Amino acid sequence: MASTFADRLTALVEERRSQVCLGLDPDPAKLLPGIAVEVDGGSGAPAVLAGRAVAAHCRELIARVGPHCVAVKPQLACFERLGPPGWEALAEAREAAREAGLIFLADGKRGDVPVTAAAYAQALVGSTPTPWGEVPGLGADAFTANPMLGRDALEPLVAACEEHDAGIFVLVRTSNPGAADFMDAPSPDVPLHERLAALVDSLSGRLLGECGLSGLGAVVGATEPEHIAHLRELMPRAVFLLPGVGAQGGDPKLLGAAFAPGPAAAIVSSSRGIAGAPDPAAAAAELRATLWEISNS
Amino acid sequence: MASTFADRLTALVEERRSQVCLGLDPDPAKLLPGIAVEVDGGSGAPAVLAGRAVAAHCRELIARVGPHCVAVKPQLACFERLGPPGWEALAEAREAAREAGLIFLADGKRGDVPVTAAAYAQALVGSTPTPWGEVPGLGADAFTANPMLGRDALEPLVAACEEHDAGIFVLVRTSNPGAADFMDAPSPDVPLHERLAALVDSLSGRLLGECGLSGLGAVVGATEPEHIAHLRELMPRAVFLLPGVGAQGGDPKLLGAAFAPGPAAAIVSSSRGIAGAPDPAAAAAELRATLWEISNS
Repeated sequence: MASTFADRLTALVEERRSQVCLGLDPDPAKLLPGIAVEVDGGSGAPAVLAGRAVAAHCRELIARVGPHCVAVKPQLACFERLGPPGWEALAEAREAAREAGLIFLADGKRGDVPVTAAAYAQALVGSTPTPWGEVPGLGADAFTANPMLGRDALEPLVAACEEHDAGIFVLVRTSNPGAADFMDAPSPDVPLHERLAALVDSLSGRLLGECGLSGLGAVVGATEPEHIAHLRELMPRAVFLLPGVGAQGGDPKLLGAAFAPGPAAAIVSSSRGIAGAPDPAAAAAELRATLWEISNS
Repeated sequence: MASTFADRLTALVEERRSQVCLGLDPDPAKLLPGIAVEVDGGSGAPAVLAGRAVAAHCRELIARVGPHCVAVKPQLACFERLGPPGWEALAEAREAAREAGLIFLADGKRGDVPVTAAAYAQALVGSTPTPWGEVPGLGADAFTANPMLGRDALEPLVAACEEHDAGIFVLVRTSNPGAADFMDAPSPDVPLHERLAALVDSLSGRLLGECGLSGLGAVVGATEPEHIAHLRELMPRAVFLLPGVGAQGGDPKLLGAAFAPGPAAAIVSSSRGIAGAPDPAAAAAELRATLWEISNS
């Protein structure tokens, strides 16, 4: 019945002719105009009001921008900082994404020893057995993961993705300048990011779709396009998640190599570049058109 | 007024004559006897009941074992998997730790690009400004962090620790077998864990206490004691957090080198080894006695 993450993504990219992933990094002090007012009449602790406002912001942003996108990527940190009401807002964003037919990609960059990684898998894509019944997790379609703890620490996450037809995006080369400190350092003969790419590729058969792409994906920063072609060679089947366009300086026109295996081989996330634009829908539409063109040329 | 994390820890270790850190990894299916029954009469969604039970478990465990400990270390994954009720339980555990006079060390191994790292800092030790007032974070005394994204990604976390007199434990060499995959790999001349240790040491002046120790600490697995002496040389001022005794196989008797700078130079966390013991208080007391002896010999 259920198809793999890679196949679901491929179908959605073709249907929507889009590779745009809407980043949700809500800052309660910088919400969409109109959102704050709507909640101002409410009462409750600041966290409760802020959580409600953040949920409304996410719903509104998804409603306005969703038709131009294939996925939404909530930045878990931005919800966690509001405590329990933040997690309620995250669940609402999840629901709004579902209603809009969008893939929900939880960006928490989790990584821990195997027994704890299994608990993160329950939180993100699985569920937790309890004496009072099964407690569902977030129900994400995919999530990001930090591989520094090694292959055994990734294993429970990959196994959960197999079980739940989910996707996992492993950090290979992030978009911040400091990524060079360790991920670009020789390790010992090749940069660490090449070793991480080899790990991703070696696991990619586990989450392979009929489309030929794998939901064992990789986070590759859009800020360093010179890495992309080489990393694509090392990970020919992985779906790439490319953050860093817009505010972080990445130019979407330079991302062509990521799409070498096909139009669904990469999704490009933008947060502030869309939500902070005077017209978020227009900003998303522009990014969508740029990406569709380079991915089909 | 407020003293640094390192000075608070040093005073508490001396006062309690303990370096035991109680790990809180609550599994709703394996709570302390009696806890489940207490909640069985309640009604509500499984997540709500499980969250309540987990909170009661943490309170009970802290009450029984707390006097033998200096710190509690909640594993955030185990709370996250219960959704908003899990975060409510985490806040209750935080309150119970405060009442018991214990340091609260949030173990989430977060790490992200700088703008997002700042949001994690707000979630863990700071607060978030909103139009409805400041939303307090978890109020942790310290937290664990993943350094793979580089120095710029650690910077907002360290800055938040300076501002809030908190501590940060950077992953240097974790306790799982897979840690060897990358952290022990030459990078290029020395293992990556030595480079990470150099980063920790270079930042340690930022969180230095009058005691001579730094709250810029390091996670060093107790499962590989041969690394500990060398890492202590590379990080002479860092407080070590040593996980992996008990269930993961680490022998507390082999951890002496970690305490070279003094009895407060390391804390040793145990989760299943204490909570899963027939008599948790006795298990904690035994670990406490072993550690106090080796740290003062």
